[in-house]
Amino acid sequence: MLDNFFNPKSIAVIGASRTPGKVGYDILKNIIQYGYEGAVFPINPSATEVLGKKSFSSLLDVPDKIDLAVVVVPSKNVIEVIGQCGAKKIDSAIIITAGFKESGIEGAKLENELIKKSQECGVRFIGPNCLGMIDTHSKVNASFAAGMPAKGGIGFFSQSGALCLAVLDRALPDEIGFSKFISMGNKSDITDTDVMLALSEDENTKVILGYIEGVTDGRKFMEVAAQVSKKKPIIILKSGITSAGAKAASSHTGALAGREAAFDSAFKQSGVIRAHTINELFNYALAFANQPLPKGPYVAIVTNSGGPGILAADACDKSNLQLTPLHKEYVDELRTFLPPVASFYNPIDILGDSGADRYERALNTVLKDERINGVMVLLTPTAVVDVDATAMAVVNVSKSIDRPILTSFMGKQRVESGTKTLMKYGVPNYSYPEEMVSSMNAMYNYYLWINRPEKTYNNINGLKEKAAEIFDEVKKESRDRLYELEVHDILQAYGFSQPKSLFARTPEEAVAAAKGIGYPVVMKIMSPQIVHKSDMGGVKINLISKKEVENAFFDITTRVRNIMPAAHISGVMIQEMVPKGKEVIMGITKDPHFGHMIMFGLGGIYVEVLKDISFRIVPLSQEDAHEMLRETKTFPLLRGVRGEAEADIEAIEKSLLILSQMAVDFPQIIEADINPLLVRQRGEGVVAIDARFTIGGD
Amino acid sequence: MLDNFFNPKSIAVIGASRTPGKVGYDILKNIIQYGYEGAVFPINPSATEVLGKKSFSSLLDVPDKIDLAVVVVPSKNVIEVIGQCGAKKIDSAIIITAGFKESGIEGAKLENELIKKSQECGVRFIGPNCLGMIDTHSKVNASFAAGMPAKGGIGFFSQSGALCLAVLDRALPDEIGFSKFISMGNKSDITDTDVMLALSEDENTKVILGYIEGVTDGRKFMEVAAQVSKKKPIIILKSGITSAGAKAASSHTGALAGREAAFDSAFKQSGVIRAHTINELFNYALAFANQPLPKGPYVAIVTNSGGPGILAADACDKSNLQLTPLHKEYVDELRTFLPPVASFYNPIDILGDSGADRYERALNTVLKDERINGVMVLLTPTAVVDVDATAMAVVNVSKSIDRPILTSFMGKQRVESGTKTLMKYGVPNYSYPEEMVSSMNAMYNYYLWINRPEKTYNNINGLKEKAAEIFDEVKKESRDRLYELEVHDILQAYGFSQPKSLFARTPEEAVAAAKGIGYPVVMKIMSPQIVHKSDMGGVKINLISKKEVENAFFDITTRVRNIMPAAHISGVMIQEMVPKGKEVIMGITKDPHFGHMIMFGLGGIYVEVLKDISFRIVPLSQEDAHEMLRETKTFPLLRGVRGEAEADIEAIEKSLLILSQMAVDFPQIIEADINPLLVRQRGEGVVAIDARFTIGGD
Repeated sequence: MLDNFFNPKSIAVIGASRTPGKVGYDILKNIIQYGYEGAVFPINPSATEVLGKKSFSSLLDVPDKIDLAVVVVPSKNVIEVIGQCGAKKIDSAIIITAGFKESGIEGAKLENELIKKSQECGVRFIGPNCLGMIDTHSKVNASFAAGMPAKGGIGFFSQSGALCLAVLDRALPDEIGFSKFISMGNKSDITDTDVMLALSEDENTKVILGYIEGVTDGRKFMEVAAQVSKKKPIIILKSGITSAGAKAASSHTGALAGREAAFDSAFKQSGVIRAHTINELFNYALAFANQPLPKGPYVAIVTNSGGPGILAADACDKSNLQLTPLHKEYVDELRTFLPPVASFYNPIDILGDSGADRYERALNTVLKDERINGVMVLLTPTAVVDVDATAMAVVNVSKSIDRPILTSFMGKQRVESGTKTLMKYGVPNYSYPEEMVSSMNAMYNYYLWINRPEKTYNNINGLKEKAAEIFDEVKKESRDRLYELEVHDILQAYGFSQPKSLFARTPEEAVAAAKGIGYPVVMKIMSPQIVHKSDMGGVKINLISKKEVENAFFDITTRVRNIMPAAHISGVMIQEMVPKGKEVIMGITKDPHFGHMIMFGLGGIYVEVLKDISFRIVPLSQEDAHEMLRETKTFPLLRGVRGEAEADIEAIEKSLLILSQMAVDFPQIIEADINPLLVRQRGEGVVAIDARFTIGGD
Repeated sequence: MLDNFFNPKSIAVIGASRTPGKVGYDILKNIIQYGYEGAVFPINPSATEVLGKKSFSSLLDVPDKIDLAVVVVPSKNVIEVIGQCGAKKIDSAIIITAGFKESGIEGAKLENELIKKSQECGVRFIGPNCLGMIDTHSKVNASFAAGMPAKGGIGFFSQSGALCLAVLDRALPDEIGFSKFISMGNKSDITDTDVMLALSEDENTKVILGYIEGVTDGRKFMEVAAQVSKKKPIIILKSGITSAGAKAASSHTGALAGREAAFDSAFKQSGVIRAHTINELFNYALAFANQPLPKGPYVAIVTNSGGPGILAADACDKSNLQLTPLHKEYVDELRTFLPPVASFYNPIDILGDSGADRYERALNTVLKDERINGVMVLLTPTAVVDVDATAMAVVNVSKSIDRPILTSFMGKQRVESGTKTLMKYGVPNYSYPEEMVSSMNAMYNYYLWINRPEKTYNNINGLKEKAAEIFDEVKKESRDRLYELEVHDILQAYGFSQPKSLFARTPEEAVAAAKGIGYPVVMKIMSPQIVHKSDMGGVKINLISKKEVENAFFDITTRVRNIMPAAHISGVMIQEMVPKGKEVIMGITKDPHFGHMIMFGLGGIYVEVLKDISFRIVPLSQEDAHEMLRETKTFPLLRGVRGEAEADIEAIEKSLLILSQMAVDFPQIIEADINPLLVRQRGEGVVAIDARFTIGGD
């Protein structure tokens, strides 16, 4: 995929310049100077030669076939150039030029025209408003970045060109290896999704790294990420998550910043590893690109000093990793060569006078314990330590095993050459033990992800047809809210238990209904104009006799007529009084990037005050529903505390799946709430007490 | 303070060695080679000269006065040397030697003897089991560390010698300036507290940095820290906080790791800034040592690229800082020289083609807005940026103002010399924008701390005498638990409302009591042997008539006699049925480091399931009580949700202060709970429904 971008046999630079410092010069120079072996054609109407290459005044004048066009002409000329690409049968372009969506309304218009034109001409393009692209393996540096990263396994794409520069500059002195660098710009044609797919197929790329501010098609992003992440780790830094950040994001590239919950869910559901800082992005990338995954949570720490060992142990405790004591056999072996005041338990403190040989022996002994899934090595630059030799010892051990080793040789001056050795041989070193541990933990979490069973999606067959009729009717009447009876019928169609209820137009019918349902009952006014029934005295509960039902009918109707004379009263609903249970809330919302999401939380104050809710993007798998419940802090209340019976957790999960199915069946749903959903004891199911649906244009 | 350590006129090295690589050699060499100008006396029984200095076979042979003894003899000889120090009137020693508490029971015994001996001889000492001490200003490097840090304002003390080494090595290449480096070792004489006080008085130290695994006297630590932190920032990394870490901590130096809640409270109450990683420790130190504090939360970000700007904005949003738009006047000024597609709002994006001059003009314009309390500068290494010139521009701006400037020049290779310039002139640079923001935030939080009004401590006069009698009685009877009546009387003595209650021995007395209190009432069995009354049917609630009281008396006593024939039944307690209200829990616990702590939380599941509790160490100020409530997530429930009336928050705060006073009055309290404390509406007070007290040996 995107082969003509990554592996072009010939490149044209449209807008190539003879003036150093101009982008059109820098790009051409980068293409030439980093060893690209294909043909290069500068296009410049007023030159015959640029940087020693024969130049053409137009793309159309080039006699040879061109695989990739790099466009650096002014924005007003870009569309014309794309037209020429079409004419020249060039199907791949990188549009460096700025002045599109990011610059305002005029620019946005121009960008729309650009998209249209490129589609007409069959040209796929990266950008516009980007830094370009680098492939270290094919030696294409079609960017105006200063430098060429070392060859390696990290494929990086970034919505921010500046971040590309910073990452590149950070990577150069340490020779951190990259496969590809792709500055995405406005992503108006080729998107994150395309690039993830391409990197997934690229054999030089071992880990996919990305910086995004927003996504263009959230659904597709998730679908592709879920598929790719099973093959290669995807680590993404997403910014613009907070209100201040979101403001900056929209003024930056015009991207609508996604809501935190939606992105969090999307990443979780598609196996994307979320980095929270640039530093984390880097740290994780180094680990994934260089070391095998730990196949379990059990790790050992070998250190020449206590303090940093404790800091690392603290960090393990906050992670999913577990420091586990070695098997006695290996503790005994350690005792044969470590000083008696060493610490033989985990962290294993081999003391400040350790040389490289002691490190190596200790590591080899630790690794004999097959239960240890990964090892972390700490070093502080004591007087006697030989940092370089110790680094080589760690490298040697690392080469001999298929379990991960990460290091934190701490300090700077004395450890520098040693850490270079480590990095050179693929043992990532971290400045601080906490970063080392969190990188190991990210690897373990990814191991869990790729080894979890395939998600189970149930096809839930509700009476879609019945519900469809109702939604159609609502649309026909240009309403956005559904009437209570409509909600009732839809929930029923999808199999939700609801309080028994009967409609009654007269006091006599109400009494008959109450008798049919069985006392005690609830009575609610029914009127299309009245939404908040109880606020206006339109609800009476716990009616226990014929007499009370008759009185209630009279009270309610009189009261409503007095308050809202214009309201049409269709009658009253007589409902069964539902016995007590736990109350939960679930609902459907719609995110601008990812579409429908399902929300879950325990009812009342837990949602309102503690905001103890969880989200997943539709469609939900069984596993999603399972996890959603368990992510809330109040979940133990459903399990039952203080000897209470367990609530019907399975029924809640099933209800979430049904809601998800509804959202799939009816994209026009903008918002829905079941609040409260009453949960009975295990095995006794749930009852939807009240619900609302709002639909939109779809 | 500690003048003979930091500014000795003469130093003896007892155990000085002629063999390179030996600690006794390295220390002597460090003292000599880094320019110490005082007299140096090597002590070595088998040499006449070490490293060019005349050597003596014993301390006692040195004719001159000695200010500081550095002890590197084997552990078995240390006590003898301390004796000689006493004889020589040397009052200050650094004991490098290991083999004490950290090495096991024998070592611990030796350490106790050492402490005793030093007290007899009037010798104060740092260590044992430490790396030594460095003072850059007096040029004393009495350590075996490899290197001498640059002069500067950071005073660092560390329980871990290894961490000293790592920090030193990290500091050397960047010439980060330190005033003092103190490796504390086992802290068996001179403690963190002594060093904090000394650093507080040291005019070369601007910020106090520490790494601790535990404290020896928590109370004193807090007292001193609270006093020092008003003068200079104290930044501490405390490890061993988690269970795995704590295990490593206790096997390391034998320190009992403190409980997280206690240390968190202690730091909070005494204004200590807590670093959570070594990286944070460093980052904060750089900011505090070099820049003035922001006098408010309003910050501006100037950047040459959007993406990093968004990341910084995200980080601001998670902090107490606020990105505020500039005043229109200054936005207009920016417009006069920035390109039109720049972003004039905060973050201010001056675009990728910015030179040093544009940075400088933009910064100067931003700083004209007096409402801006601090500025953060971002730079990504674009092709055109002149990093060195920009660094100097930032330095120039920084010199002209008394507001803080922090920078994040991102990358490594191209920014290196620029960041060195920044650091050299006291503008801290951070590799990543997130670190820059969190350092600015730490400075702002510290500004808030030093400017908050003095805490208000109320002297609450309970009837201490009455309570003292009860506690004495309990002790006399060698009990650890108080009887219900005793608890009742103590709470009453301290002014807690309790349900009206009367003791009754017979059914007739019970009925009379119920009548006196007023129906409905509660009846509880009274027996010294019965703790969990309701579990054995010893409680009846909601008794509404004479008849019910009589029946209940019979039921309860019969039941208890059947179940526990040996229990002595003194009678029953008749109590008022307390009307409903919110339930909270408060209590006293005792931490091994810091002594009594007060706990607060909303009752029932909020404490049990959500662990939504807060702590403060005794004595509580009014402000502490105020904050404790507001720290819990469930606090809004006390304010009232869904139109509920507000609970009597003031009465809860007062109750916390009373509990604190109780703990002060009676150190023997090990644990106390008031659970539940029933809270009525605002103005109506609280009622202690049930409580327990446990006392210990004190």
